[in-house]
Amino acid sequence: MTAGAQTGAIIVDCLEYSRPSRKRFLEWRDGHVGCVHVTVAVWETARETLSVLGHWNDLFAENADLIAPARTAAEIREVVSSGRTAVVLGFQNTSPFEDDIRLVQVFHDLGVRIVQLTYNTQNSIAAGCWEDDDAGLSTHVGRQFVKELNQVGMLVDLSHCSERTCLDTIEFSQVPVAITHANPLEFVGTDVELGRRPKSSTVLRELASAGGVVGLSPYVRMLKNGVKTTEQEFVDMISWTVERFGVEHVALGTDFYTGYDVEAVKWWRMGRWGRESPVPIDESAPVVEWPTWFQSPAAFPTLVSTMMRSGFTAADLDLVLGGNWLRLFEQTFDRPSA
Amino acid sequence: MTAGAQTGAIIVDCLEYSRPSRKRFLEWRDGHVGCVHVTVAVWETARETLSVLGHWNDLFAENADLIAPARTAAEIREVVSSGRTAVVLGFQNTSPFEDDIRLVQVFHDLGVRIVQLTYNTQNSIAAGCWEDDDAGLSTHVGRQFVKELNQVGMLVDLSHCSERTCLDTIEFSQVPVAITHANPLEFVGTDVELGRRPKSSTVLRELASAGGVVGLSPYVRMLKNGVKTTEQEFVDMISWTVERFGVEHVALGTDFYTGYDVEAVKWWRMGRWGRESPVPIDESAPVVEWPTWFQSPAAFPTLVSTMMRSGFTAADLDLVLGGNWLRLFEQTFDRPSA
Repeated sequence: MTAGAQTGAIIVDCLEYSRPSRKRFLEWRDGHVGCVHVTVAVWETARETLSVLGHWNDLFAENADLIAPARTAAEIREVVSSGRTAVVLGFQNTSPFEDDIRLVQVFHDLGVRIVQLTYNTQNSIAAGCWEDDDAGLSTHVGRQFVKELNQVGMLVDLSHCSERTCLDTIEFSQVPVAITHANPLEFVGTDVELGRRPKSSTVLRELASAGGVVGLSPYVRMLKNGVKTTEQEFVDMISWTVERFGVEHVALGTDFYTGYDVEAVKWWRMGRWGRESPVPIDESAPVVEWPTWFQSPAAFPTLVSTMMRSGFTAADLDLVLGGNWLRLFEQTFDRPSA
Repeated sequence: MTAGAQTGAIIVDCLEYSRPSRKRFLEWRDGHVGCVHVTVAVWETARETLSVLGHWNDLFAENADLIAPARTAAEIREVVSSGRTAVVLGFQNTSPFEDDIRLVQVFHDLGVRIVQLTYNTQNSIAAGCWEDDDAGLSTHVGRQFVKELNQVGMLVDLSHCSERTCLDTIEFSQVPVAITHANPLEFVGTDVELGRRPKSSTVLRELASAGGVVGLSPYVRMLKNGVKTTEQEFVDMISWTVERFGVEHVALGTDFYTGYDVEAVKWWRMGRWGRESPVPIDESAPVVEWPTWFQSPAAFPTLVSTMMRSGFTAADLDLVLGGNWLRLFEQTFDRPSA
């Protein structure tokens, strides 16, 4: 059993949010996935997040043959060398900090390494992609938190943030930032189900120019042809994005999730802050569907083969499958405090 | 011992934030103050706010000869009739809700009746007066919370909010709202120490047009001549505001506070979200100074006399000293849930 693609590249999936279980970890092994960034909070408070981290401690102990936690790029490489999948912990929101800047270091001490500034809506730090009025990174709280994340060594994620939050943060951050899971707006268009989630070419150009990385996703609500999108069309999107923004700035973040019921969807859509979901929830529909060619991360080897047939060189694959993320992790995790 | 001004009007001071103690309650008695809206949270979490409310329960028990809690305008009148000062509990921020919309009802059940949407900075609900980029009331979280506050029966306070938050909320709210403690920008100018706190004439006009009330303050950082401002100049500001926006929409909210050290100032300025205060703090200066003619709420009778000499009729005084607040409380507290 070895992790890594048929090319020798380390595969890094820079966001998954499945309900964690051994079944999922076996899919990672079957897919030769070297590292997965998993979400441990979307709206959770500090206290609730501690329990989620406690649950992951149990999962690491019970599945030590398949997975291990990683806090640095070096640790990821060590876990991959041992034939297992490295797990990087991340937040899709800043709710666990509860507006306490000193909790950034506390959660870093607990292994959290990637933090999205907001999840769709406005919070004290930043505007999300659902806001009609987009004030970007906030003048006081937002700037102080980004500075703290930089200094403590957490990678800033802008996936569900607004256009201006992306541009403000790319400019303000002292280190490169990430869009771990989003597709290019110019390629997929605004007609996709989650039309506010894809990122403009302006954002992607500035992200790349500042050394950042975007992770592309086969999540059907962000694909031009929805669930009918073919694997070749997905690979074409990767090629298009690489040509437009540079092979050192494009990677994968599948957003893969499974194992949830509609109550989880309501939680993601409105946490505890709403009585009405801003996005209609069809309770009779499946929570999520994945394309036939990506029913789970076990499908990575097939995707890699399609990329190879489409002209990706070994050097390109090394970067896009995982090398770009590992480089960014090296630049941002465990920085010495300024 | 009777509460009420020499004219028979009930005096309502619609914001004070002193460290509570019997000495303060005696000043209220000496000033014939019928009702005070006191602040029980600025950055406190839900849990911390419960302890503050517990402390107020002790204060009510220990000082039952001077003060009593009030949850409705009728209760305020009953407490005043008993010769004591009625206390209305309020938040200067939405931090105690912790983005949980159902905590609005919970804190209403605990007696909280007035809630400021944000304290100077951006939060999930609204932009504060310190933000350079003013997105107003937020599209999703903000609107759902204002609707909830309306339905549960909490008066919305916009004192430390941004211009657009004021305008958006005045328009969106189903019931009139308050600016409990702020002075008119057109009268005091932007050169006052807290230049972003005074309210524009546009905001005051819309507030009045929607049935709201503004409380004027002798807080020297919001007065044109600072600590040298005379009582007559303060009364002139009341007269100017009444002439401009209508006697039914102007009242008092002194913002009086005392009993704190510089650590409290740091808490107000940046809660736990900052490592650097956005507003310089001079640690060698007094925490706060008050004009010679308003060293405490015990000075209310002198202020009332000056207002009478300046031409305020008994009917005007009835409204400005407390009647406007009592009318607004009647319109907003304890509304039946929709």
